[in-house]
Amino acid sequence: MVNFHVLTLFPEMIIQGLSASVIGRAVDRGVISLEAVNIRDYTVNKHKKVDDYPYGGGAGMLMQAQPVYDAWKAVAEKIDAHKEKGKRTKVIYVTPGGCTFHQAMAKELAKEEDLIFLCGHYEGIDERVLEEIVTDYVSIGDYVLTGGELPAMVMIDAIARMVPGVLGNQDSGETESFSNYLLEYPQYSRPESWMDKKVPEVLLSGDHKKVEEWRLEQSLERTKAIRPELYDKWAKENQDYFVRKAKKACNLKETMVNY
Amino acid sequence: MVNFHVLTLFPEMIIQGLSASVIGRAVDRGVISLEAVNIRDYTVNKHKKVDDYPYGGGAGMLMQAQPVYDAWKAVAEKIDAHKEKGKRTKVIYVTPGGCTFHQAMAKELAKEEDLIFLCGHYEGIDERVLEEIVTDYVSIGDYVLTGGELPAMVMIDAIARMVPGVLGNQDSGETESFSNYLLEYPQYSRPESWMDKKVPEVLLSGDHKKVEEWRLEQSLERTKAIRPELYDKWAKENQDYFVRKAKKACNLKETMVNY
Repeated sequence: MVNFHVLTLFPEMIIQGLSASVIGRAVDRGVISLEAVNIRDYTVNKHKKVDDYPYGGGAGMLMQAQPVYDAWKAVAEKIDAHKEKGKRTKVIYVTPGGCTFHQAMAKELAKEEDLIFLCGHYEGIDERVLEEIVTDYVSIGDYVLTGGELPAMVMIDAIARMVPGVLGNQDSGETESFSNYLLEYPQYSRPESWMDKKVPEVLLSGDHKKVEEWRLEQSLERTKAIRPELYDKWAKENQDYFVRKAKKACNLKETMVNY
Repeated sequence: MVNFHVLTLFPEMIIQGLSASVIGRAVDRGVISLEAVNIRDYTVNKHKKVDDYPYGGGAGMLMQAQPVYDAWKAVAEKIDAHKEKGKRTKVIYVTPGGCTFHQAMAKELAKEEDLIFLCGHYEGIDERVLEEIVTDYVSIGDYVLTGGELPAMVMIDAIARMVPGVLGNQDSGETESFSNYLLEYPQYSRPESWMDKKVPEVLLSGDHKKVEEWRLEQSLERTKAIRPELYDKWAKENQDYFVRKAKKACNLKETMVNY
């Protein structure tokens, strides 16, 4: 069970964007919870303003420290009231200037009880409040987005899938891409022939071992072509696969020679 | 002007998720257009089903070829009717098994007239329709998500920001992170002192040259600490910066010796 808390200027975007599909159903079943807190509700500015010009000049506006800090404080105090003392709740600031999010991180974060995501907007957030409250600076990739909402949703989706009970099929999260560095093999569904394209015969054979072998080979081939650095990682950890494969090829040759 | 077309089982998620903020306003102003096409509307199955079991076994369901193909065809034909002949519209399949999206790719794709995004769900899409229609396999990072909708929204956001006229301040897209490999420098807004934390003095100096220097140094320091591989790229392309810096340090020392 993970409780996700998102500090944002666009709470509806978070709730609507994650309501579809597996995450929404997990919230309904109570396996995870999701709360979006509007930072604007915490500003002391009488015009409800939350941004101002950056010192030193530059394009755009910055989110100010006060509303962000007070929104965080309200959430953190609510969490602390239900939680064992002394354990600090992680506050993840979604920023292109962070460490890059990946599947192993999703798995780790899925073990937390509570996670607070802070979504920036405009040109960013006053550095002082980040220093004060943020525990992790995380980026989802090397590209610039309008705000932290989409990347927070991406991380929540990836993390939630790793929480036990969220996926219908308990294995599903484990067998997918990146759990073992390899990209997915191609998949086929009915009909057997579509636009003159046939399903590969091995998949119709009913021979599970052969199907597994074929899928692994396909995954390896794709990974080697598209993401060679992931292939190398896999190869390093699975040297026995190549030994087995080489042995098999030798045996085959010997058999051929014998005949 | 880019027209974004998204083939998805969750069209509302796309429209709502991108309606907030700068992208929604750009659509209103007619600088970009955004259309979400429901793949389910194109199934010939009388129960409106779009998925079936994978051949060869395995967890979960696959999206079938027919509804995906027909949804794509409807969109592609509509585009072709308005477009110079012979130029094929890119179809981007959002998949963890693709090349990794980055800022330079966003900039390139922002030059296209039309872009079609195909969002998978369940365990994926029948390989044969991918072979038939997809031109680009793109991933937003090394993590697994419930469907292609969130990553499509992420890419559309990043690409749209690079389309001339989308950002209010024309420079803004260029000066941000990754345009030059460097992470953002820290920023500060009012008040000058918050919770006993003061804005760095240089930012209050009014000396623009000094401010620029300080910001560049801060960016370099952060990038070196958090993303050394990006720092190396920058350093390679900006060797004159280090030469200048070394010269300055030498001059300073000479001056000190002279006194």
